[in-house]
Amino acid sequence: MSVDGEVGKDVHKPDHPNSVGWTRSHKVVLFEDEPFRFEAGGTLGPVEMEYEIYGENRGDNVILICHALTGDAHVAGWDENPEGPMRDYRKTKPGWWDQMVGPGKAIDTDRFMVICANVLGSCYGTSGPSSINPGTGKPWGLAFPVVTMADWAKQQYELLRMLGIKRVRAIVGGSMGGQMALEMGLAYPDLMDDLIIVSAGHRGTSQGMAFSVIGRHSILNDPNFNDGDYYDGPSPLSGLAVARMMAQITYLSEESMGFKFGRKLRGKDSPDFTLTGVDFELESYLNHQAESFVKRYDPNSYLYLTRAMDYYDAAEKWGGGDLAVMAERIKARVMVVSFSSDWLFPPELCRELVSGMCRARRPITYVNVPSRYGHDAFLVETETVKRLIGHYLKNPK
Amino acid sequence: MSVDGEVGKDVHKPDHPNSVGWTRSHKVVLFEDEPFRFEAGGTLGPVEMEYEIYGENRGDNVILICHALTGDAHVAGWDENPEGPMRDYRKTKPGWWDQMVGPGKAIDTDRFMVICANVLGSCYGTSGPSSINPGTGKPWGLAFPVVTMADWAKQQYELLRMLGIKRVRAIVGGSMGGQMALEMGLAYPDLMDDLIIVSAGHRGTSQGMAFSVIGRHSILNDPNFNDGDYYDGPSPLSGLAVARMMAQITYLSEESMGFKFGRKLRGKDSPDFTLTGVDFELESYLNHQAESFVKRYDPNSYLYLTRAMDYYDAAEKWGGGDLAVMAERIKARVMVVSFSSDWLFPPELCRELVSGMCRARRPITYVNVPSRYGHDAFLVETETVKRLIGHYLKNPK
Repeated sequence: MSVDGEVGKDVHKPDHPNSVGWTRSHKVVLFEDEPFRFEAGGTLGPVEMEYEIYGENRGDNVILICHALTGDAHVAGWDENPEGPMRDYRKTKPGWWDQMVGPGKAIDTDRFMVICANVLGSCYGTSGPSSINPGTGKPWGLAFPVVTMADWAKQQYELLRMLGIKRVRAIVGGSMGGQMALEMGLAYPDLMDDLIIVSAGHRGTSQGMAFSVIGRHSILNDPNFNDGDYYDGPSPLSGLAVARMMAQITYLSEESMGFKFGRKLRGKDSPDFTLTGVDFELESYLNHQAESFVKRYDPNSYLYLTRAMDYYDAAEKWGGGDLAVMAERIKARVMVVSFSSDWLFPPELCRELVSGMCRARRPITYVNVPSRYGHDAFLVETETVKRLIGHYLKNPK
Repeated sequence: MSVDGEVGKDVHKPDHPNSVGWTRSHKVVLFEDEPFRFEAGGTLGPVEMEYEIYGENRGDNVILICHALTGDAHVAGWDENPEGPMRDYRKTKPGWWDQMVGPGKAIDTDRFMVICANVLGSCYGTSGPSSINPGTGKPWGLAFPVVTMADWAKQQYELLRMLGIKRVRAIVGGSMGGQMALEMGLAYPDLMDDLIIVSAGHRGTSQGMAFSVIGRHSILNDPNFNDGDYYDGPSPLSGLAVARMMAQITYLSEESMGFKFGRKLRGKDSPDFTLTGVDFELESYLNHQAESFVKRYDPNSYLYLTRAMDYYDAAEKWGGGDLAVMAERIKARVMVVSFSSDWLFPPELCRELVSGMCRARRPITYVNVPSRYGHDAFLVETETVKRLIGHYLKNPK
């Protein structure tokens, strides 16, 4: 998720009537008596979980939002007292989907209560590799259990239970969050009326996996990596920077990259013909994205979360490879939104999921939005996404 | 160029009648009296140049082949006495376009004399950053002048002059070599009858440049890089490995990667759920590609050659941005071949060049070959490429 890229444009200040205003995250401790059992093995207890809530619970109006790879629980509004690695970032920008969530917005907090929880393995408040291992008094590092999409679904299900919420109106997610929404529809089919899956698929593409593999390779081979035990010394930020720059290619499309940067030179009329310096705007942009990202993300978390995405294959897990068999489990209405130029979760992949739903005779709404913004479109094509989701939610099951 | 990927299948041994047999490279020293002047500044003299020749010169039958990014002068046959970084590689494999070049093959060495020269900045025999700087007695490193496509064109032109060749029947190149062929057609319009440009464009795409930028970033930030002065110690091979793995994504397509690897596990029925190990075939493949490549390539050369590709924009240079104005310079007949799934030099980009040629009313043959093999198709779709080029060359100007 290219949070730096476009979000932040045209946003509402905290005192605007359409803003959820100043927000404060909640922290809850779960699995104190019985530890959390990870799908791939290992246990953890207690588990700290960070989440945010906007709007009031009226019993049938809860919407769970699932965040993307580098996102967090802070969906909308302005963090009253930003802490942790997002501290500086949050001082200048509202939540990552602020344009979508607020009073009178597409996900209208006057009507809905919105919840978003940070996922296990992340570095934004929920237990992860940078959390303290009570057994050693030091950060877990790679001793933290491997997390999967199923773990995230279970984690959020347990949070809802703890909050006394038995059923939600909708689960909404983009990218990795869309995969999480799908997994919740499969693992807890009675939990929701609607699933809204944006820019996501039942699995990743081979190219997507290749980008992840190389990003992790870059982190693992950074000399500061030290088997993940780097919290007392220099971090493998150089490896993380490369992983982020690579991911940035997958978030944009050739068209958006060409339109935004093309072959534009950076503040000069003719190139310097430099091997080590910057000549093109595109270089400067990629450098900037990396520099900004490494200040706010933990390299170990990047390993855990991308690996969970690589391992996810909903058709294999729930349907023995058959998408229709998988889809038969789903009881929710489903909306899938793809974007024409998204090549991380391309329309062809989304159509496979949609086709599985059709074959299983499950209610499905599918929209492929013409857009040049690639995967980032779900954060950039806000007018279209607002209309689609806003309209869909006005029509109760 | 994914020389490891597919080349080597179905090849002719040196004693086969369609093989050019055992070959030996030639080395020539040029620019002894008057140094070579680089387009971006700097001079070099003398310049060592490595090239190979197959077939006999009958005056009107010379074909110049231009190699791709990680290629070399050894196009066909088996190296009699392999030396240098390609040593081990060449013991097991013939030249990089052996399927195309030889007696009775598409580029028929019974009819044509074929020349291929290694480019300036490379590490395969022609002067480059790993060559000895006579001023210091040590390798040049980053003190080697920045090279451009124009330098490569001039270098090859001078080689032909030295060999007494005033005009060639055709200049043929794939990928970076196709760009070089185009540049020769623009810089020396009277030198050739035909230009055959395969899987290449008058410039790179923005995505292509992004891959290059990040590959270089990875090399430059390898702690062993030492400002390019690493020849006495450990080399920045970790950075080069990441650059190569990334490039590998651009050589394949989603379809070929999915077909070849998909989500196949590596020698196991269920994943190990490992963060640091290998679970998928795709991971193993990318690791293998990188390991094999770093043994035979110089990281500095990777910086120089990819940068030259980034800077190349033929329309800007020769037509002030107008492809038709550029094309008016060309006197050769031109054939352009693209492949449907190539996204490093996509068909849309090739069509821009073709359209420029049409607008300038220059003779142009364009074929877009349906293929799932992505950019590598020019090395993999040998039957089709053989037919296209073989047939084209049978029809003299």
